[in-house]
Amino acid sequence: MLKISAMYTDQYQLAMAQVYFKSNQKNHRAIFDYYFRDLPFQGGYAVFAGLEDFLKIISELKFSPSDLEYLQEQGFEKDFLEFLKDFRFTGNINSCMEGDLVFPNRPILQVEATLIEAQIIETILLNLLNFQTLIATKASRIRLVAGDATLLDFGLRRAQALGGYYASRAAMIGGFNGTSNVIAGKDFGIPVSGTMAHSFVQSFDNEIDAFRSFAQASAENCVLLVDTYNTLKSGIPNAILIAREMESKGKKLLAIRLDSGDLSYLAKESRKMLDEAGLHYVKIAASNQLDEFVIKSLLEQQAPIDIFGVGTNLVTGNPDAALDGVYKLSFSAGKPRIKISESIVKVTLPHKKQVFRIKTKDGKCVGADAIGLYHENRIEEMFHPFEPYKSMRLNTFEQEPLLKPVMMNGKITIPLRSLAEIANYSMERLAQLPIEYKRFNNPHIYKIGISQTLQNGRDHLITDIKKRLK
Amino acid sequence: MLKISAMYTDQYQLAMAQVYFKSNQKNHRAIFDYYFRDLPFQGGYAVFAGLEDFLKIISELKFSPSDLEYLQEQGFEKDFLEFLKDFRFTGNINSCMEGDLVFPNRPILQVEATLIEAQIIETILLNLLNFQTLIATKASRIRLVAGDATLLDFGLRRAQALGGYYASRAAMIGGFNGTSNVIAGKDFGIPVSGTMAHSFVQSFDNEIDAFRSFAQASAENCVLLVDTYNTLKSGIPNAILIAREMESKGKKLLAIRLDSGDLSYLAKESRKMLDEAGLHYVKIAASNQLDEFVIKSLLEQQAPIDIFGVGTNLVTGNPDAALDGVYKLSFSAGKPRIKISESIVKVTLPHKKQVFRIKTKDGKCVGADAIGLYHENRIEEMFHPFEPYKSMRLNTFEQEPLLKPVMMNGKITIPLRSLAEIANYSMERLAQLPIEYKRFNNPHIYKIGISQTLQNGRDHLITDIKKRLK
Repeated sequence: MLKISAMYTDQYQLAMAQVYFKSNQKNHRAIFDYYFRDLPFQGGYAVFAGLEDFLKIISELKFSPSDLEYLQEQGFEKDFLEFLKDFRFTGNINSCMEGDLVFPNRPILQVEATLIEAQIIETILLNLLNFQTLIATKASRIRLVAGDATLLDFGLRRAQALGGYYASRAAMIGGFNGTSNVIAGKDFGIPVSGTMAHSFVQSFDNEIDAFRSFAQASAENCVLLVDTYNTLKSGIPNAILIAREMESKGKKLLAIRLDSGDLSYLAKESRKMLDEAGLHYVKIAASNQLDEFVIKSLLEQQAPIDIFGVGTNLVTGNPDAALDGVYKLSFSAGKPRIKISESIVKVTLPHKKQVFRIKTKDGKCVGADAIGLYHENRIEEMFHPFEPYKSMRLNTFEQEPLLKPVMMNGKITIPLRSLAEIANYSMERLAQLPIEYKRFNNPHIYKIGISQTLQNGRDHLITDIKKRLK
Repeated sequence: MLKISAMYTDQYQLAMAQVYFKSNQKNHRAIFDYYFRDLPFQGGYAVFAGLEDFLKIISELKFSPSDLEYLQEQGFEKDFLEFLKDFRFTGNINSCMEGDLVFPNRPILQVEATLIEAQIIETILLNLLNFQTLIATKASRIRLVAGDATLLDFGLRRAQALGGYYASRAAMIGGFNGTSNVIAGKDFGIPVSGTMAHSFVQSFDNEIDAFRSFAQASAENCVLLVDTYNTLKSGIPNAILIAREMESKGKKLLAIRLDSGDLSYLAKESRKMLDEAGLHYVKIAASNQLDEFVIKSLLEQQAPIDIFGVGTNLVTGNPDAALDGVYKLSFSAGKPRIKISESIVKVTLPHKKQVFRIKTKDGKCVGADAIGLYHENRIEEMFHPFEPYKSMRLNTFEQEPLLKPVMMNGKITIPLRSLAEIANYSMERLAQLPIEYKRFNNPHIYKIGISQTLQNGRDHLITDIKKRLK
């Protein structure tokens, strides 16, 4: 596993921590909210991912002797460095679960810790959760259109350097079946698979020799890449020959792979040729610049493709470079805190909070979350502050609290799940979401409201700041 | 430093390697070309980066005992695993230097090794070089418009997970001055810097208390974030008070930072207020969704900004998710190899090659590279195969060979340079490039031609394949 130290942070976190350390704020406790402001891909939902990696990393986070030496050269002071030597994250975290559907402008996770501890983990929190949530959401969109097709992550070579490591994990949470990424396979237990490269075919004097060598060495999983020279004139006829040779040895060719040209046309022609040769069981895999839109189009054209290998557009979340997740102070030193802004939607929500997902009695999402203070057990009425004022009586609905304790005093308090379990959980959550939120164009907006108590507390703080600014 | 093992690869590399191992191709040597097909950002050039990291990693690449155990569970065979146990990369590499300007469809780097070794390193090569080249190019574009302003990388929190590590390095090669990323500072010797977060200001009861505490703890580098409540009514007046308090102690406020609102307007108003207070030396830093276009526009509006902090758009290369670098076989088992395609520009170039940059006697780029066989010392005439046929006599020009030996038998053969040296080198290279290639809209296309000998060799192979396909 790639090792991340406490140095994986922004310089200002340490600069601020040193000021806190030297001030009376050294032991002040704070609450920070993690949330994002815009859904990626102009979609209707996001799939939360990255939590377990984040928790594991911060539960073991520390500064090494060489880290401290470096920080000393950077001018940090002796007593602060002495403090960092024993630094551990000892705070509490409440969070949505990995695989939960999440929406803008409501807390996905809350950190409760000393100001110093909460700042030092900010960068790694944003870095891991923003990215995995982006990729799990992309993967989920691809799964939505792909039906039962097998989806494989082929993206490592085009990933943003080591980002490929976590991208493969997040893709599984969003609904992929496997990856080509061997280290992710090893570390996260993801099924790994792959076929052959064009160079393999080229390195033999003839395509048929390349296919034959590969088939002899393969067990159950032989996939032949048919487009090195000419898919329909050479690749498919040679693959058919090899499939027959394999049959004579009691083996079966798993699939052929198309990696260029018009995938819809080539898949149909290839299917016809394979079927005419009696090879109905040989599957068709396709790759080359795929994303949710291309796959949707291919399947609408009834291209007989069984396996999609998705690369760049999956692991980089193209066209969205990043989820715009932020980490905002909502409470410190015993007082609620707020940040105001020229833009009303950027005003933060003070206090320790809970997010309730409003559902019908049979468990369907009604398209609204309500935010209250953490100790509010139920919310009676919900206010929408970010749109023309309206309110909604909630007493006929179920209210599911989304933020659950996942870390107490720096120790993980939830059972860790396998990736398959998280992916299944996410599928269940997605099934509760009405289809209007899943469409790609102008999806329905998942509403947000706040409780009367939170509303009052917030108004009070805003009035107070405005008074001081006059 | 983040440790990368030989498992950071695609499954098919190992599957192909096993077939080679069991066939007569076990010791066959091959040459692979690394190049890309499209310039990122619709720009006129790219800045090559990532080479030293790549060389260091492959010079130490191996499979650990637990890696081999995992591969055994995955069904790889005993004798092949035994072979992997002692696997080291022992090949040769010729390459452009980091900081060189590179263009599409001509080799940037060539790997010469056994087929097995060359395949196993493919994924890590593409992963590291594609990404760092993308980010160095983005950084270079930002430097082009930013003039002498200080450019800081603030992107780690929005980076694609661990991609932030190498993004900070590549940004320096493209012309940035520093980073907020502490681990990149430590591992790559990049100057680190940072200011404060909004949460820091919020955690105090008053903005002025927050500023005062920060100023007391800061040495020469105090930057105050002025937009938590109201930039012009509160932030700047408080910063002026603190600057005066600092002066009375013989210290100087370095800068104020704007992170929201209309940066051009706020910078001008802030400058006015600071100047009226006699604080001409206090600089203005700006951040918030910056990229080359926003910075260009700000400077065209004569916004008096001295320091730009660039985040997401820098470290993710937004809007381009990836450089489309590929790795293609050009020679194996004593024979030149080619891949043909429906698209003429995707036909590969066979043989071991050299790329010559054509320059005037005084060292200016004339806008064309010529590709010849590796042993060709000079190219007399250059043919453009990818556009309406024309040729160019080269005897009046200088010809600079770009591919130099950087690794022999698995050992690095070039002196490693500091990032500052690489960045300076890149600036020199950029100065040789005419301005038409640097503009953002429809830049001039950097031509490519091939020598008569290479042209003949390629035509011969194409004819040969077409004959076999009939």
